Amino acid sequence: MRIALDAMGGDYAPEPNITGAIVALQADPALNVVLVGPQDLLEAQVAASGYNGDRLSIVHASQVVGMEEKPTDAMRQKPDSSISVCWKLMAAREVDAVVSAGNTGAVVASGLKTRLFLKSVKRPGIAVTLPTSAGHAVLMDVGANPSARPSHLYQYAVMGEIYAREVLRIESPKIGLINIGSEDVKGNDLYRDTYRLLNEGPLKDSFVGNVEGRGLYQGEADVLICEGFVGNVVLKVSEGMADFLMKEASRQIIGSLDVERDKAKLAFQEMGKRFRYHETGGAPLLGIDGICIICHGSSDAHSITNALRGSAMFKDRGINSQIADHLVQKPVA
Amino acid sequence: MRIALDAMGGDYAPEPNITGAIVALQADPALNVVLVGPQDLLEAQVAASGYNGDRLSIVHASQVVGMEEKPTDAMRQKPDSSISVCWKLMAAREVDAVVSAGNTGAVVASGLKTRLFLKSVKRPGIAVTLPTSAGHAVLMDVGANPSARPSHLYQYAVMGEIYAREVLRIESPKIGLINIGSEDVKGNDLYRDTYRLLNEGPLKDSFVGNVEGRGLYQGEADVLICEGFVGNVVLKVSEGMADFLMKEASRQIIGSLDVERDKAKLAFQEMGKRFRYHETGGAPLLGIDGICIICHGSSDAHSITNALRGSAMFKDRGINSQIADHLVQKPVA
Repeated sequence: MRIALDAMGGDYAPEPNITGAIVALQADPALNVVLVGPQDLLEAQVAASGYNGDRLSIVHASQVVGMEEKPTDAMRQKPDSSISVCWKLMAAREVDAVVSAGNTGAVVASGLKTRLFLKSVKRPGIAVTLPTSAGHAVLMDVGANPSARPSHLYQYAVMGEIYAREVLRIESPKIGLINIGSEDVKGNDLYRDTYRLLNEGPLKDSFVGNVEGRGLYQGEADVLICEGFVGNVVLKVSEGMADFLMKEASRQIIGSLDVERDKAKLAFQEMGKRFRYHETGGAPLLGIDGICIICHGSSDAHSITNALRGSAMFKDRGINSQIADHLVQKPVA
Repeated sequence: MRIALDAMGGDYAPEPNITGAIVALQADPALNVVLVGPQDLLEAQVAASGYNGDRLSIVHASQVVGMEEKPTDAMRQKPDSSISVCWKLMAAREVDAVVSAGNTGAVVASGLKTRLFLKSVKRPGIAVTLPTSAGHAVLMDVGANPSARPSHLYQYAVMGEIYAREVLRIESPKIGLINIGSEDVKGNDLYRDTYRLLNEGPLKDSFVGNVEGRGLYQGEADVLICEGFVGNVVLKVSEGMADFLMKEASRQIIGSLDVERDKAKLAFQEMGKRFRYHETGGAPLLGIDGICIICHGSSDAHSITNALRGSAMFKDRGINSQIADHLVQKPVA
C-alpha cells in the first residue's frame, strides 16, 4: 500500500509527520509513504532522521496552505500546495491514500475538486469517532458538506454504518439521527425527510430514531448522522467542553488533595489521552474513490502513525467496495 | 410582583415546586406566587407544607402536560393544562411572569400562541447561561425558533446583549456568532447574512465575529448567537459531555487514590454544582411582553426558588423596556 502524506500539514509539521511515517514503516513492511512538500526541506529532514530504507520517497510541492487560510483562497492561489499535490497523486492512482493534518477545509475542497467519488455517492462526508459511555460512536458529517440534502444524510448513514462495523468492530451498529427531540416530526424539513428515508428504507432495521445531544454521549446509537454545520459544531463544542472541564477538574480536584496529588495528576493524564483525537487514527472523508484520512491539526508523530495504519486497515477491510455495493444495489432517493 | 408557577412542571413536581415557592416567598416580601395545577392536590400539598401566609394562592388547571409529550398534541388535547393556564394568567395581566420546569416545547408553543410579543420583536428565543473558562456566557436561541431568519438572529443579539449586561452584570458584552470557522464567508446563507447584519448594524462595536464551538467554552464572547436547532444541540451535547466526563473522571481519579478519596469526592460534588442549571435561575424566553422563565426538567426546590427570584430581578432591571427601546429606535432588516 502506498500513501501520500502531506508532510507540511499540521501545527507542528513537518517533524512529527516524518517521525510518524518512519514509525509506521517500521511496523508495516507492506507500507510505502510518499512525503509531499518542499523537496530540499524534506530531504534534509529525512537525512537527519537517520532513516535509510527505500519505502519513504519525496514528491515536491512548492507551496504550503496555512492552517487558518481561507480554503477558497488557498485553492486559487496555491495550485502547487502539498495538499493539492497529494490529491493529484491519488487521482493519477500513484497512491492508494492521502493523509493530512493540514487545513481541513482545503483538504476537503481540494478532494472534492478531483471528483474522485465512489459510484453512486452524491457528496462525501467526514466521519469522526467520539468516545461515549458505551465505548465509541461515529459522527458524520462534521463539515465536508455545508448544504446537505436528505439523500446525502441517508448515504452518510450507509457509509457510517459500514465504517463502524469494519473499523470500530461493532457487529450491528445502531444508527441515530441527531435531532432536538425524539418525535419523528422534530427539527426542520431536512431532518424530517431524512428521518423518513432512514425509517422506511433499507437501513430501517438499524435505525433507532432521533438522538438528542445528550444521547450521543450516553451511547444511544453507534452511528450519528447530521449535516455538516451541526456536526462541526458538535465536534468543536465537545472538544472545547472536554478541554475546559478537564482543566477545571484537574485544578479543583488536585487542589483539594494533600498527599496524593501526583496520583491524581497521573490519572488525569491517562484520562486525557482517551479524549484526544491522536489516538483514533484520524477522520476519514468517506465517499471518495480512494482513501483520505484527515488528522487533527495538533497531531503529533503518534497520531500520524495511527492515521497511516488506519489507512491500511481501511483498505484491508474493503470499506469502499462495501459502500459502493450497498449504494448501487439498494439505491434510495 | 406576581408570578404564575406551573406547579406540575418538572420531573419531580409538584413537591419541589411548592417548597421552592415557599422559600422564595420567605426571602422576598414583595413576591406573590400563584400555583397553577389541580386545586385539590395543591391545596393538600400547601396545607401539608405548613405555609400559612397569604402570598401563595392557587389557580386550578385540570390537565398536566407530560415531559415527553408532543407539544402540538398537548396544545390540542389539553387546553386546560397548567402550562396553558399560566400563560392565560399572563395574557390577562393577572401575573407579571410565568415560571415552568415543564415540557419546554409546550411552554414555548403555548406562549407563542398568546402572541404576547414585545413591540418590534419578530420571534422570541430562549437564552441559556453556560459556564465558560472566562465566567459565563449567554447562548441564544436554544430551541424556541426552528426556522430562524437573519433578522431573528440579529434580534437575539440585541436581547442577549441586554440580558448579559443586566443579569450577568457584564459591562460591555461581546457578541459572537456560532459558526464553523472564523472567516465571514463561513457557514450557510443564514449565518453569512446574519454576520453582515451584526458586522454593519448598530451592534457592530460589540460584535467579535464568528466563534467556533471550541471558542464558546474559551469565553471568546459573552453572548453567542445561533439558530434554535444548533443551539439546542450545543446545549444538550454540552450537558451530555459534562455528565459523561464528570462520571468518568470521578470514577478514574477517585479510583486512583488510596487515602484521600473522600476529599476528591467532595471536590467533584462541588464542581458538579457549577455545571447544573439549577443554580442559574432558569432560561428566559426573551422577546415576550411579560416574563417567562423556563427551568430544567430535573429542577429541585432550590432551582425553583432561583427561577422565581430570577424573574423578580428580570423585572427590576427593566430588561423588556430596554429591548423594546433598542428595537424600536434602531431597527435592522
